Amino acid sequence: MSLLVAVPTVVWWRGQTSSQLRVNGTRLNAHLTELAQFGKTPEGGTHRVAYSDADLQAREYVMKLMREAGLEVSVDAAGNILGRRPGSNAALKPLMIGSHIDSVPEGGSYDGQVGSMGAIEVAQTLNENSVRLRRPLEVVIFQNEEGGTIGSIALARGLTEKDLNLVTNSKKTIREGIRFIGGDPDRLSSVVRKKGDIAVYVELHVEQGGILQNEKIDIGVVEGIVGVYWWDVTVEGFANHAGTTPMNQRRDALLAAAKYIEAVNRIVTSIPGRQVGTVGKIQAFPGAYNVVPGRVTTSLGLRDLDAAKVQMIFGRIQDEVRQIEAATGTKFEFKQTNASPPAPTDERVRRLIDDSARQSGLSTKLMPSGAGHDAQEIANLGPVGMIFVPSRDGISHSPREFSKPEDITNGTNVLLHTLLRLDATNPN
Amino acid sequence: MSLLVAVPTVVWWRGQTSSQLRVNGTRLNAHLTELAQFGKTPEGGTHRVAYSDADLQAREYVMKLMREAGLEVSVDAAGNILGRRPGSNAALKPLMIGSHIDSVPEGGSYDGQVGSMGAIEVAQTLNENSVRLRRPLEVVIFQNEEGGTIGSIALARGLTEKDLNLVTNSKKTIREGIRFIGGDPDRLSSVVRKKGDIAVYVELHVEQGGILQNEKIDIGVVEGIVGVYWWDVTVEGFANHAGTTPMNQRRDALLAAAKYIEAVNRIVTSIPGRQVGTVGKIQAFPGAYNVVPGRVTTSLGLRDLDAAKVQMIFGRIQDEVRQIEAATGTKFEFKQTNASPPAPTDERVRRLIDDSARQSGLSTKLMPSGAGHDAQEIANLGPVGMIFVPSRDGISHSPREFSKPEDITNGTNVLLHTLLRLDATNPN
Repeated sequence: MSLLVAVPTVVWWRGQTSSQLRVNGTRLNAHLTELAQFGKTPEGGTHRVAYSDADLQAREYVMKLMREAGLEVSVDAAGNILGRRPGSNAALKPLMIGSHIDSVPEGGSYDGQVGSMGAIEVAQTLNENSVRLRRPLEVVIFQNEEGGTIGSIALARGLTEKDLNLVTNSKKTIREGIRFIGGDPDRLSSVVRKKGDIAVYVELHVEQGGILQNEKIDIGVVEGIVGVYWWDVTVEGFANHAGTTPMNQRRDALLAAAKYIEAVNRIVTSIPGRQVGTVGKIQAFPGAYNVVPGRVTTSLGLRDLDAAKVQMIFGRIQDEVRQIEAATGTKFEFKQTNASPPAPTDERVRRLIDDSARQSGLSTKLMPSGAGHDAQEIANLGPVGMIFVPSRDGISHSPREFSKPEDITNGTNVLLHTLLRLDATNPN
Repeated sequence: MSLLVAVPTVVWWRGQTSSQLRVNGTRLNAHLTELAQFGKTPEGGTHRVAYSDADLQAREYVMKLMREAGLEVSVDAAGNILGRRPGSNAALKPLMIGSHIDSVPEGGSYDGQVGSMGAIEVAQTLNENSVRLRRPLEVVIFQNEEGGTIGSIALARGLTEKDLNLVTNSKKTIREGIRFIGGDPDRLSSVVRKKGDIAVYVELHVEQGGILQNEKIDIGVVEGIVGVYWWDVTVEGFANHAGTTPMNQRRDALLAAAKYIEAVNRIVTSIPGRQVGTVGKIQAFPGAYNVVPGRVTTSLGLRDLDAAKVQMIFGRIQDEVRQIEAATGTKFEFKQTNASPPAPTDERVRRLIDDSARQSGLSTKLMPSGAGHDAQEIANLGPVGMIFVPSRDGISHSPREFSKPEDITNGTNVLLHTLLRLDATNPN
């Protein structure tokens, strides 16, 4: 699928080799600190849900930085912030880099924000060093990533009426939110791009897991964004008086649910690989000390890079559930509520990321992204790549989210050099 | 403790032996049907929580029946309905029979109501047949049994300020509720009785379990009311992103809770006996598809006739919990919220119930009461006994609660004859 074919090792300008070019890490991390002021919480985290006042203020700040980086700034009809830089050959498809600046409720100051500030820093570095790329560059700050990669869906396949009517964490619908941040929900069709409209999309992001820190690796080369599958699970038993119903006459929905939760964990961990399985929700009815639960609602979440493997695991869980039903006199029902297929990254982009990192003396590891990202949507338009930097203790979506300034600088330099290498490849 | 020592087999009056005396089953079951009209729900059950309008109306109906049965009716300061019948020897301590007519929300038409109508029918049968007992008889309809045996606590040990301030299912506090039903919360000390103030208390009740039906037994002779012990259980793990946190780096509070629920069931069922253990409540935080639960609140309920056995089982659960903590990286905390000690019935009362049943050709089974009853409080004042009749499918606290009219009549005849035998024993 990718048209990138060759990687020149050295490009000259201004008397230095491109491989010596470096971003300004001090400025980059200062920008991150400044950005963190918008929606700062007493716990030192960030509460900046999409379409909030803090989001709006942070977007103004970001547009100011983009203009300082020499980018031509606009807000598209979907509310995404675009910063454009022309290339020497206007006929070539653009290179796209970026991320998002909205946060989950009571979130941290790194998720999305590192990639956003990193992309702007790359543009500013190119500008300061008068590096003229062959291809146009687009820096995109996607709106409302945390609410379901809304901005990138608008570009990659278009938002539906149902999407637009969703009520978000800001209490605004997505339609209202798009208006609030300067978009125009009546002109959304104008932002939808076609497959092949971009040369490549590369996103820098914090890992949000603990693998890089644990293995003391500088840079994660993302091999793909895992597929995400969710089910609502209902267990029907029979509610009865806990004092008068002997143990062998119970049809305890919570006991059945407990066996199910244990089975999900056992099955998912008994198969080699990096798949994850999670039961995150549970409620028992009627939910009293002295009533055998007659009904339980719970959930299932499975993620892997390989959709067939998820299907196989789900099948094994179903087999075990049949046994639990028989043993406990209960009945399970699974209703799928989400099925995002895996989005593999482009193999050649991965290699360029890896080369760029190694040339700077940084260690790398090929790894999946367990979390969803805008890149999974943009993969519908062209080849994508993702660069991960370590997250302290693997914590994210929390005020305790943290990545070291030097790791952020390293990741941004890898983004810069990956971009230079991508620009130098054959035109398409 | 009991002063009952001898059981005469036959007493004569009006030309028939006492053993031929029978209650009017048709009238008894008609009274139950009439009582069920107060708070009747569309599902055919009864919603008659204490201190509701339906409760007030049903109490008026009950007092009318009591007067028709020749009882001298009063409402005590705690709101209990008392119906008195003098004995031939005013110096003797009274025989007490009764139950309650309040229901759980969306409950049935048998729990408490069978024993209440049964006790009044016994009084009416004595009255119609001009049977003069040696001892005074008190028929007591205890108020608010379902809200925590409030009326019997008022008699047996007195209500506390904390009790009086509790908000009940009627939305009234217990203090307000007592006023609403004609009691006087400022004179509660007047109703507290002393140990030894009654000769005996016998309560007829529906089993609320399925043992009698399953074993085709007519009458349950209750050997005691089990101790009821409740704990709030908190499991602390660590909340993290379900997509980015590998399975082996999780501290999943819900997985730990599932292992705990399974362990409670396994431990309770692996020990011979009739103890029950129930986990009825559960909540996971934050409770989302894509977050590994960082905290779970759940519960534990243990019941048995033997307090030491409950302690032993709780100890085994604790041992297993230590292993679960180590295996899952979580921390459990148990906070006891209820500890009602077991209340054994009087051995001689049991024997009289058993004799009375067998003499009428009814089969019996000695069994614990898994549910709490007013009798457990009155056990503080003197010897108690309880008579169970079968519950269809063991269902109670539900509109589907049902006991057969003939079983109810049988149980009431057993109550009558137990009373006659108790009256004939030596004075105290």
